[in-house]
Order: sequence, then C-alpha cells, then structure tokens
Amino acid sequence: MKTIHVPVAQAYDVLIGRGLLAQCGRTIRPLTRAAACAVITDDNVAPLYAETVRRSLEAEGFRVETYVFPHGEGSKNAQTLLSIYSFLCEREITRSDCLIALGGGVVGDITGFAAATFLRGLPYVQIPTSLLAQVDSSVGGKTAIDLPEGKNLVGAFKQPLAVLCDPDVLSTLPREFLIDGMGEVIKYGMIADAHLFSLLEGCTIDNVAAHFDEIIPACVGIKRDVVAEDEMDTGLRMILNFGHTLGHAIEAHYHYGTYTHGCAVAAGMCLMTKHCAPALYERLCACVRRYGLPEQTDAPIKALTALCGGDKKRAGSRIRYIVCPEVGKAEIREAALADFTAIFA
Amino acid sequence: MKTIHVPVAQAYDVLIGRGLLAQCGRTIRPLTRAAACAVITDDNVAPLYAETVRRSLEAEGFRVETYVFPHGEGSKNAQTLLSIYSFLCEREITRSDCLIALGGGVVGDITGFAAATFLRGLPYVQIPTSLLAQVDSSVGGKTAIDLPEGKNLVGAFKQPLAVLCDPDVLSTLPREFLIDGMGEVIKYGMIADAHLFSLLEGCTIDNVAAHFDEIIPACVGIKRDVVAEDEMDTGLRMILNFGHTLGHAIEAHYHYGTYTHGCAVAAGMCLMTKHCAPALYERLCACVRRYGLPEQTDAPIKALTALCGGDKKRAGSRIRYIVCPEVGKAEIREAALADFTAIFA
Repeated sequence: MKTIHVPVAQAYDVLIGRGLLAQCGRTIRPLTRAAACAVITDDNVAPLYAETVRRSLEAEGFRVETYVFPHGEGSKNAQTLLSIYSFLCEREITRSDCLIALGGGVVGDITGFAAATFLRGLPYVQIPTSLLAQVDSSVGGKTAIDLPEGKNLVGAFKQPLAVLCDPDVLSTLPREFLIDGMGEVIKYGMIADAHLFSLLEGCTIDNVAAHFDEIIPACVGIKRDVVAEDEMDTGLRMILNFGHTLGHAIEAHYHYGTYTHGCAVAAGMCLMTKHCAPALYERLCACVRRYGLPEQTDAPIKALTALCGGDKKRAGSRIRYIVCPEVGKAEIREAALADFTAIFA
Repeated sequence: MKTIHVPVAQAYDVLIGRGLLAQCGRTIRPLTRAAACAVITDDNVAPLYAETVRRSLEAEGFRVETYVFPHGEGSKNAQTLLSIYSFLCEREITRSDCLIALGGGVVGDITGFAAATFLRGLPYVQIPTSLLAQVDSSVGGKTAIDLPEGKNLVGAFKQPLAVLCDPDVLSTLPREFLIDGMGEVIKYGMIADAHLFSLLEGCTIDNVAAHFDEIIPACVGIKRDVVAEDEMDTGLRMILNFGHTLGHAIEAHYHYGTYTHGCAVAAGMCLMTKHCAPALYERLCACVRRYGLPEQTDAPIKALTALCGGDKKRAGSRIRYIVCPEVGKAEIREAALADFTAIFA
C-alpha cells in the first residue's frame, strides 16, 4: 500500500492499495469517534460495492446508513443535495458522525459538499471508484454541485479525513469511464511529469490498466504538491485547469450530453496546445488518440471562447488560462477576454 | 465610532457607530478589490436603506446589484438561496466581487451562506439592521439556512470582511423586533456581564434604546471573546447557547410562528434557570418582563425536551446545555438525554 500525505491545514492521507475498499472499516476506525457512517453512493456503484463497504464498517462497530441516488452528472444538483440532507436528518446523523463518498466524481463532489454544510460541517471519507476520481477529483478538498447556469458554481473547500483508492475496483469500470479518466491522467503528464507522459505514449487504452499501480500514485503525488502549495485555489492550483477552460466550454456547448469531462478536457488541451505551443501539438494529439480521446470538437471556436467568459476562474473581465510550453511544464497566463479570444481566431 | 477586532483565522473588525450605514462605501472600499457589490436584503429593509447603501457604494466606484427577497424566517430556506445564486450568476458576480448582507438575522445568515458557497466562496460584509443581528448573529461567522426538518441545519463558518453596526437604524425597528433582540442582550448579561445585567434591570423596553451605544459594544465584545477562543464551535462557544436548547425547541413546537427567536430564548433561559439555578429565577424573570419577553410557555415540557433530542448540538445520545449559576457566569453541562429530561420532570 502507498500512502501520500497531503499537508494542508487539516492534513490527511491518500491511501492507494488493492483490496482497500473491502478493508475500509479497519482504515477508517482510528480516524474518527463516529457512531454512524452515512454511505452516499449512486445506483451504478451501490450494487457492486455498497454491501462490501457496509460489512467492513459494521465489523468495526459503526452503524451504517446507505443513501443511493441516480448516477450521472445530471444528479449533481441542488435537488439531490436536499434529498441527501433529508436522509441525514431522518437517520439522525450528528456532527460527530461521518459521511462516506463511495463512487466517482459526482458522488465525491456532492457528498463532500454535504459534509461541508450539513450541521455546518462533519467529517467525510472519500472512497473513489472511478479512475477520474482516484487520480483527480477525490484529492484536494474541492466540493461542489452544479447550477442550471453552469458546473460547480456552488461548493466549498472541505478536506476529507482520508481518501481510500483501491485500483482493483477500476476493473469493473465500463470502457468509456476508463477513457474519461485518462483525459486527466494525460493532463498530469503534460503539466508536471514528462516520465509519466512517456509511459502513456507507450500504452493504449487496452493495456494501460497494468500500470495503474504506478500511474495513480504519480497523479495523486502531483495533485498533492499543487494543493499543498495552494489549498484555497488562489494561484498555482490553477495549473490543474490545463485543458479545462476550453473543456468546460465544450461540455457546456453540448449541454453536458455529448462529451464526458475527460473527453472535453482532452479536446481542450489539444486546442490550447495547437494555438499556444504548436510544436507539441502533434505529440499530444497522438497520445490522446491512443486512449480513444478526442483531439478536437465540431463546436465553433467562437462559441467556445464566448462560453469561457462565464467561467468562474475569471477575475473581472480578464481570463487566466494554462499553457504547457513543453511536456511536464505548465504556465499560468492572463489576458483580457478579447485578447484570449483572438488567440483562437 | 468603536472598533472591536475579532482575532480569528480570517480576522476582521466590527465597527459600531451612528451614521455608519450611509458611509458604508467609504468603509468597505479599502477592504476589497471588488468591482461589484451584490446587496442582498429583504422587502422590509430595502425601502428604508437599500438606496442609501447603493449611493454610498457607487460613490466609491462599485457596480451595485441589489436582490430583495420576502422578509421573515420563512425565507431562510433552500429556495431563497437558489434564487440568490441565480441572481449572482445573472449579474455576473465573480469570486473577486463582494456580497453585502443588509438586514436582520435571516438576511445575514443566508447571505453569509451564499458567500461561503457561491463559486466556493467570495467575500461579504454584514450591515445588520436589527438589534438581534447587531448584538449577536452578525458576529462570529456562523451562516445557515433552515431545512424542513429544523432550523440552521445547513450552513458554514464564514467570517465577513467587516461588520458595520449603525445604532441609528434601530430607531426604525418595530417594537416587536426590539423585544426580539433584547432576548439575546439579556443572555449576554447572564452569561458574562453582571454590569450589563444590572444596567438592563434599570431600564425597560421603552427607554433602553438610550443605552444602545453602551449595550451593543458590550454584547459584541463578549461574543468576540468567545468566538476568538472557539471559532469552529467545538467548546466554549456553546455558552452562547444559554436559553437556546429549550428556546429552539419552543420555536419548533410552535412551528416558528408564535415565538420570535428572542422570545423563545427568554422563555428557554427562564425555564433552564428555574430548574438548574432556582435562586436566580425570580431575578431573571423580573428582568425579562421589563422587556415584554415571556418567562414561560404553554408548551408541555415533555414535548420540549423531546424536541431537544433533535438539536444538532447533541453528540451521540448525550446532550450539552448551559446553566448560569450566577449572573455573569455560564457553565457547560452534559447529560444523557434521559437525565436531561428528568431535570424538568
């Protein structure tokens, strides 16, 4: 098992190891005095892992209450959040109890936000079950829900008690979810780890899983380094948004229906690199293709840059965006919105 | 003008002075680089003060957007919160802009929670316009909304950039709001300030306003001392809940319709003192009566203690409650829920 310590104000460990999900109770028990654990999960994950998690927690003496909501980004909204609050009230979860986010990015984001706000905050543990969540969204304490006006517009910074990544659970992932996660994995190679990127250039979507024991800690380690330096997302952390400024615009343009997050980020990285670091463009596209990810979109670039104006990272009428001038290195750039648009004209 | 510095992690000042509301722009300008201020207020306060605040902010170069929602505790819910989020999206408020809570406790609580969560947090300023908000709820960074299941069940700790208390605005308060606020003022005397309590014993609801320049800083000073020692409400801060454990139960029993918060707290303080510090009971009741506050309720005590079980301060099946063994001194006590109930049997 690998342990990656995240030294933020409320420090915690990311544990990465095969079989960790079935032993979650033993891992969580020393971290909390909770009497009850409320496991929040979705209807994709619940049939696979909810009982295993329940048994492991009950074996350590926790009362376990499980709430299941419909899977998918469409559930990451105020309505689901309110139904979680009601569930927590009904099951008499108190401030000294613990929430468990068992699932992918949507489950982690909304459960984390519930943990940040129910009774003004209670502890929570992340058990990410998707590649995307294991390498990216479960680490760093960003929690959120979507509004009708856009993604992640409401949220909080709330660090978990621990993150338990079990690479074994990725074997049950449908292929499209693996592809989705690889978008973020390639991003980590691009922004901070040339060795990781080379490894990815030697694999494909069909054999990359054999390297997860190396890939997951590499990604989490990068995220840890960035988050530790910028817990509240006021500076360096922005490099994690490589591909995301345009990626979010792509997702929004297609109303979150056509592109998964990872696919949109992949296209966003390629588009940004094409215009800002053209010497790298072909190499990035070739890597992206190995994982079934798109290197472009049919959306008109003007429609996308217009949508970037609504991105919450914007300060006033200027926009900050990320460019990788070489593999393994990221730079934050800032421009007036009009100048940013002109880059892609 | 008096300045009370609150030395929490994100330190800020509570400014108390007549005329401060009309000069709010000049006070806020040095605190933020915001381009826009979104003033959140209710339909009681807006006709009285929204234009004054707008003019003062615009004179300092802020773009001002004002959102008005229906007054009253009934608005402190998820629906109003979502409408505030939509308004902030529509008016393109960014993370570097600033919210202004202009109103009483409901406006302060919900605006603070919006500031804690919209775009994962942006700055806000409190301009409390009720006595209750000036002496209590605007200081300390507790923000919240109600759920159908109970009051303040969802919230966050979010310290404001500043709190601007203008005692002049209290002159427009309807008498019942003044009475409401006096419940908390008497609480501050009871828990920490025998001199304040004596002052209150020498006034009535009809002439106490003449002493607000002394009373408001005294209450804020006590709250500052407590909050500074226990920002996240894990210990000492609980003494601020004197009268509130039963008070919340009284409010809930009457479905938040019959008793204002201050009235419920007054009855809660008297009930607690009657059973736990009987020598003080008559003195407290006499003081409470001077301000038109109730010393008891018609609700059966069993119904009230049953409701205490649902209070979020409960840790497991035990309950903590506050007793003042003498005027100016508070103690935290803890008991099993059954033992707590037996005290009042």
